[in-house]
Amino acid sequence: MGYSMCWLEYEKLSKKEVERYSEWFESLAMLGDVPKEVVEELKKFARESLGVQLRTFTRFLKKKRYILVGLLNSLPFDLDASEQKPEGFVLKTLKVGNSSVIVLTGKTRASLVYGTYELIKRVRLGEDLESLDVLENPKVRFRMLNHWDNLDGSVERGYAGNSIFFKENEVIVNERTKDYARLLASIGINGVVLNNVNVKKKELHLLEPAYLEKLKKLADVFRRYGIRVFLSVNFASPMHLGGLETADPLDKRVFEWWKKKVEEIYDYIPDFGGFLVKADSEFNPGPHMFGRTHAEGANMLARALAPFEGYVIWRAFVYNCMQDWRDYKTDRAKAAYENFKPLDGQFDENVIVQIKYGPMDFQVREPVSPLFGALERTNQMLELQITQEYTGQQIHLCYLGTLWKEILDFDTFAKGRGSFVKRIVDGTIFGMENGGIAGVSNVGDSENWTGHDLAQANLYTFGRLAWNPDEEIEKVVKEWIVLTFGKKEKVLENVSYMLLKSHRAYEKYTTPFGLGWMVNPGHHYGPNPEGYEYSRWGTYHRANWEAIGVDRTSRGTGFTLQYRSPWREIFDDVNTCPEDLILFFHRLPYTFKLKSGKTLIQAMYDLHFEGVEEVEDFLRKWEELEGLIDQRVHERVRERLRMQLEHAKEWRDVINTYFFRRTGIPDEKGRRIYP
Amino acid sequence: MGYSMCWLEYEKLSKKEVERYSEWFESLAMLGDVPKEVVEELKKFARESLGVQLRTFTRFLKKKRYILVGLLNSLPFDLDASEQKPEGFVLKTLKVGNSSVIVLTGKTRASLVYGTYELIKRVRLGEDLESLDVLENPKVRFRMLNHWDNLDGSVERGYAGNSIFFKENEVIVNERTKDYARLLASIGINGVVLNNVNVKKKELHLLEPAYLEKLKKLADVFRRYGIRVFLSVNFASPMHLGGLETADPLDKRVFEWWKKKVEEIYDYIPDFGGFLVKADSEFNPGPHMFGRTHAEGANMLARALAPFEGYVIWRAFVYNCMQDWRDYKTDRAKAAYENFKPLDGQFDENVIVQIKYGPMDFQVREPVSPLFGALERTNQMLELQITQEYTGQQIHLCYLGTLWKEILDFDTFAKGRGSFVKRIVDGTIFGMENGGIAGVSNVGDSENWTGHDLAQANLYTFGRLAWNPDEEIEKVVKEWIVLTFGKKEKVLENVSYMLLKSHRAYEKYTTPFGLGWMVNPGHHYGPNPEGYEYSRWGTYHRANWEAIGVDRTSRGTGFTLQYRSPWREIFDDVNTCPEDLILFFHRLPYTFKLKSGKTLIQAMYDLHFEGVEEVEDFLRKWEELEGLIDQRVHERVRERLRMQLEHAKEWRDVINTYFFRRTGIPDEKGRRIYP
Repeated sequence: MGYSMCWLEYEKLSKKEVERYSEWFESLAMLGDVPKEVVEELKKFARESLGVQLRTFTRFLKKKRYILVGLLNSLPFDLDASEQKPEGFVLKTLKVGNSSVIVLTGKTRASLVYGTYELIKRVRLGEDLESLDVLENPKVRFRMLNHWDNLDGSVERGYAGNSIFFKENEVIVNERTKDYARLLASIGINGVVLNNVNVKKKELHLLEPAYLEKLKKLADVFRRYGIRVFLSVNFASPMHLGGLETADPLDKRVFEWWKKKVEEIYDYIPDFGGFLVKADSEFNPGPHMFGRTHAEGANMLARALAPFEGYVIWRAFVYNCMQDWRDYKTDRAKAAYENFKPLDGQFDENVIVQIKYGPMDFQVREPVSPLFGALERTNQMLELQITQEYTGQQIHLCYLGTLWKEILDFDTFAKGRGSFVKRIVDGTIFGMENGGIAGVSNVGDSENWTGHDLAQANLYTFGRLAWNPDEEIEKVVKEWIVLTFGKKEKVLENVSYMLLKSHRAYEKYTTPFGLGWMVNPGHHYGPNPEGYEYSRWGTYHRANWEAIGVDRTSRGTGFTLQYRSPWREIFDDVNTCPEDLILFFHRLPYTFKLKSGKTLIQAMYDLHFEGVEEVEDFLRKWEELEGLIDQRVHERVRERLRMQLEHAKEWRDVINTYFFRRTGIPDEKGRRIYP
Repeated sequence: MGYSMCWLEYEKLSKKEVERYSEWFESLAMLGDVPKEVVEELKKFARESLGVQLRTFTRFLKKKRYILVGLLNSLPFDLDASEQKPEGFVLKTLKVGNSSVIVLTGKTRASLVYGTYELIKRVRLGEDLESLDVLENPKVRFRMLNHWDNLDGSVERGYAGNSIFFKENEVIVNERTKDYARLLASIGINGVVLNNVNVKKKELHLLEPAYLEKLKKLADVFRRYGIRVFLSVNFASPMHLGGLETADPLDKRVFEWWKKKVEEIYDYIPDFGGFLVKADSEFNPGPHMFGRTHAEGANMLARALAPFEGYVIWRAFVYNCMQDWRDYKTDRAKAAYENFKPLDGQFDENVIVQIKYGPMDFQVREPVSPLFGALERTNQMLELQITQEYTGQQIHLCYLGTLWKEILDFDTFAKGRGSFVKRIVDGTIFGMENGGIAGVSNVGDSENWTGHDLAQANLYTFGRLAWNPDEEIEKVVKEWIVLTFGKKEKVLENVSYMLLKSHRAYEKYTTPFGLGWMVNPGHHYGPNPEGYEYSRWGTYHRANWEAIGVDRTSRGTGFTLQYRSPWREIFDDVNTCPEDLILFFHRLPYTFKLKSGKTLIQAMYDLHFEGVEEVEDFLRKWEELEGLIDQRVHERVRERLRMQLEHAKEWRDVINTYFFRRTGIPDEKGRRIYP
């Protein structure tokens, strides 16, 4: 099956643009060692978008305009870029004799790759090349994709076909592997975890030579694009693979086993990134099984990896998944903080604790996890979910960039005002070296990579924000639209309208006010208001005839106390708590008066009707684009929008009916609510 | 792994009993052709229970007491048994010269097998042999077990381990196969459907030579015990296996394909029973796909099978499984009647319509399906579920004999008073030849066959009631206990108390009043009051702040109108409707006054507390039996009873909380209901 290249489809540019840019792309001067990926990409772009043949030289030219690429230490002039980070690049238009030269340089081959994609992007966005003066560094060190791919080719929470890495217990390495690396490099991703964090029987064997042999080939492809590969590992591997009767991290034999195993891995993959570990979480084994702490578990692995500059990424998603609903004291929201706050300062330098954005699990709306404000001496990685597990499973349009931006911009007050999450994970607040942002991939082997064509925007945005969390979201959206669909004004207008409003629309017709969880158990698609109400997962809303929500304030479970001031006071008080989170923090009667003067229940009804109207709006806006967008893509997206509309109505009706059946309170406006 | 033989463990009898019976079992006279299975069984019993070696002869003996076996036409005297049905047997103690002879005879080898187990049973129950005068026929023609076994060894809704027929896509034929045939023959079963009614890809190939070769061996074993094997088939087989582009039953090529296929099957299995078909039901293909009726579909198959005396068993479990909960008109309860009543009289003689006992799906309590009273010219088979899908999954003790007895004794009034379900399926009411009773098997490869040791009683009872639906349930229970655990009075008293009260107890702590369905979706274990409330399965209770239930009366969906008088009037009127079904037929406010004077909600609370108390009672009664029952069995059952108690409390608390949260009405007695 063929596949699109998403935002890297190099469509022919307009005649005017070709005239404007072609000359630059006729000649490439290469100084020193230039990665062939850079040359290939520039040639491909020149040929496909500009219709010119890029010729390469290994010297300065006399041409009026050309591009010059070389590592910083290969250049015969000083660019004032010695402070550049290893991955940072320089793009500068210089006068060299009579020539105008776009100089692309940096300290590493990765930097040249990043700069190449930036240069191409600028052309495609119609930006000026005559006076480039770009000196850009990634703000975040680890910019990771987590694939929840299984060896059999299935993808946990995958909505875009099967795995692009595995099929029937074999590792796949083909042209698409390279194209995937190109896509990721073009948005600045520098690390990929290949397999599911839930490491089951078969996947244990990924650590064995038969698989390492093949993973080496995969890593070889990614390496050329500046991407390190990581593996998820099962903490009990020494028992399953090594025949030991324990995986106790303080047992010498266990450490020795891991040490040898790590040495073996690096024999195959000399720049192997390290391990991602889901330990003591949802039935995965971990150090608690042996009476040890997460720090002891993580550090043991970290010490095996340290000699090779490998890292341990240790997930903070630890909670009691066998809760009894009759237990009113335990609050799952408190678990990550309770588990990891006491360990602050105990983790080795090459351990990074990966924290889900919210205290629960990727709901459409949660407060930012208080753990971000709590750890001061621990490397932290923010975990976002690009794959739309709880946000419409790539059937619904739900652009996540707006949400992520809010998360990154959340001020933890960890070290006074301005202690934004983005400043935590870039390490600046506490001077930690190894922070990062991880996204659970939404990619599969479907033709368009992400199932929903517009879900490509989520992947694109993730990469751009991981590179620079300060980026304006409207700008990223605009970029993505132009790179993907071209420059037509109407397309830009309508698609950006759709993307920017879609998350809030989804929130409105599903579970507003931070309520969350009213989904079908297991697959998590579609409404089921009490689907998890009596389960073991600790996700209850406890709605009764008069009230709904869990009191997580200081008068309730005390979750608000995990935040620093002023958030603890703001969240704690129903009068100051942001209303879009009010049912996350407070238990409220249905007749509670919101600031608008509406009752909670009336607002609930209103939002659900509004949400569906917005989807109708999206569909109309999309239909206006017929003929302006590739017909197959247009039809595919229209099909999904129609499904979204039907399913949004289902959500609206179920939730409204649920509340009506609870309360008997009719809609003030007399709209249809099924009895 | 070893396995018990359930009620066929031939424990050594007491000295007194040995003295009483041994002499009979010292000599066996065989006239004509006597099945070796009969001789083996008698020898085995004589050896193991009486400690004597049974010697065989082929002539009358001069011994004082002995047993004589032979087909009716081999006997030199007339026994007045010429009216016996083919499967009926005679057990008579005759004076022959100076000898007392127990004569076991009948018209077929099956009849001799049945008589053998009856004779052994009587001895084990301590009954008199001196003046036997038994002339017994099975009242029901088809006494079937349906196995929902898949080729990979899994069992749909199986709670007793894996399949005993299939493993890793191979057919199993071993000593256990024979022992299973023995168990079934001992309770009168004469047909076994080997594979799941949901016939998926792999199972399609059961109809091909590679598998038929192996199924032949399985059939050879069962045949010796009077049991015919059947297969579930996929109606679209001609498309999947035959390469046809249709499975239209009126297409000649389709019929020709089936005709050849049937001929092929009978080449391997000359007494093959026929096909069980789940068509146009829950995503299985059927004649509706081609614009044909169930009758056209079934008859097409029936005509292919008729030359070989094969049968088509066609399931009436047909309904819209893609219902929208917002559709208040469609009532799943009405579906079987609506689909099959119009076809009455159109089915061939060798078609049997298999009807689930209730209009929904094996809930702990449903009214008897009105279809039983509606079909007058159609062979009918009652479908019961021995496996405890909705009744505790063999973790809970839930003896089903009491429920089945009520079903069999339900008077349909199809042809005036006395038109009991048992008289419909035995064919006497409308003179139909080919009725029957089918049970979905609860057997797997676990050591005790049924997971819960006491669930063996369900299998035993099923066979006994299928043979004779008039049997007293207390008598069957007593038989089973004595045959399984021996004659200790305390065991008999306690176990029979537990069994006879267990179904009602389960009903009390789960979903009384005919409510049903408040289970977790998918696996159907454990409480989830709104688990199915907004799903596509058509199983809604529509509880709101003041009332619960679906109005299925003439003023509602009209389901009651499918019954004959007086049931339609009885069910239609809330004042006459049996209270244990009141929420199946009526939508009632929580404050509705029951005959006891209690409100519905108070009765709901009371029943839930009572149900749990009864489980506590069961556990106590069982603990009293320690030392009186094989220790391993005792421990296994105690373990399950403890789980049952814990899970019964979970049910009680979830359901009580659900109703309390709905209504805010507290328990009058102030017992603990979680808020």
